[in-house]
Amino acid sequence: MEHLIEQTKERSTAFQGCLLRLDVDTVTLPDGQEGIREYIRHPGGVGVVALTDEREVLLVKQYRYPYGEVLVEIPAGKRDPGEEPLKTGMRELEEETGYRAANYTPLGTLYPTPGCCDEVVYLYLATGLTAAEAHPDADEFLDVERCPLEEMVKRVMAGEITDAKTQIGILKTKLLLDSQKEEA
Amino acid sequence: MEHLIEQTKERSTAFQGCLLRLDVDTVTLPDGQEGIREYIRHPGGVGVVALTDEREVLLVKQYRYPYGEVLVEIPAGKRDPGEEPLKTGMRELEEETGYRAANYTPLGTLYPTPGCCDEVVYLYLATGLTAAEAHPDADEFLDVERCPLEEMVKRVMAGEITDAKTQIGILKTKLLLDSQKEEA
Repeated sequence: MEHLIEQTKERSTAFQGCLLRLDVDTVTLPDGQEGIREYIRHPGGVGVVALTDEREVLLVKQYRYPYGEVLVEIPAGKRDPGEEPLKTGMRELEEETGYRAANYTPLGTLYPTPGCCDEVVYLYLATGLTAAEAHPDADEFLDVERCPLEEMVKRVMAGEITDAKTQIGILKTKLLLDSQKEEA
Repeated sequence: MEHLIEQTKERSTAFQGCLLRLDVDTVTLPDGQEGIREYIRHPGGVGVVALTDEREVLLVKQYRYPYGEVLVEIPAGKRDPGEEPLKTGMRELEEETGYRAANYTPLGTLYPTPGCCDEVVYLYLATGLTAAEAHPDADEFLDVERCPLEEMVKRVMAGEITDAKTQIGILKTKLLLDSQKEEA
């Protein structure tokens, strides 16, 4: 792999906001030339595929400002500094949907946009749901819906669900449950 | 949906680089309060699941500076301003792998990180491959590999493939081919 690696020569933070930090690094490319890497430092996040006993998925509809669109997504949120991903997932599921889950199964991680951001999103499948009380953040406005898993798979395949973590969470859940059924 | 929408009050561009632009907008939230939205303006990209006649997927291994890791990804790249997504896909497949494809099937889009970036990634399944010549960009260093589709599905399910567009492209291709087999 050595012939692919880039070395940091100089780093400068071009922007530091409430959520994002943007760094511009000068790097030495594998051939010894100099290159520039602009990239976002992100606290990372967690998404939860919450599946009811009726095989329905809990979804949140939320206005996503950068796109100017209301998106259908699995419950998710940013990690607080140093917070365990599982704890973030449990917190966000309850905050956004008002549900708690008895069982959490890891569904791996995803790197949303590896060329220009260091964000890592952890995914979990949550089952054994019980109703509690929703309490979204002060600047968060969302609607909660349910949709059968099989219908969500169709919506993902038809291109109706655009959010990356939701597509991955739904398709991994479908294949995981199918493989468990085959084994049984 | 009206009760979810945020209105732009003021926009300021906090950073403008070669690749990224970062805007900080003041918005009016659905409840009338004021909020801040920090987000990246990105030119958008295209990823291609290139499948050989032997049902192998073409992959590129590439150092991803924000993570400090070599990732396994489907061929992909940024759109030039105004470029048709399909044209970007054809260009990037040939530049990175040295292959051309006779058939392109759309696999939908993905929004990698909808809270803080406006990037849209288009995905295609490419078949009918013929060898041409690879010619990566000057600051791009990568290795090309092949892996059977079924093994890639296992690697995605095992959490070994982190890149979001690669996970989505592989799982959608698997489910699409399975459904075509059932219909036949």
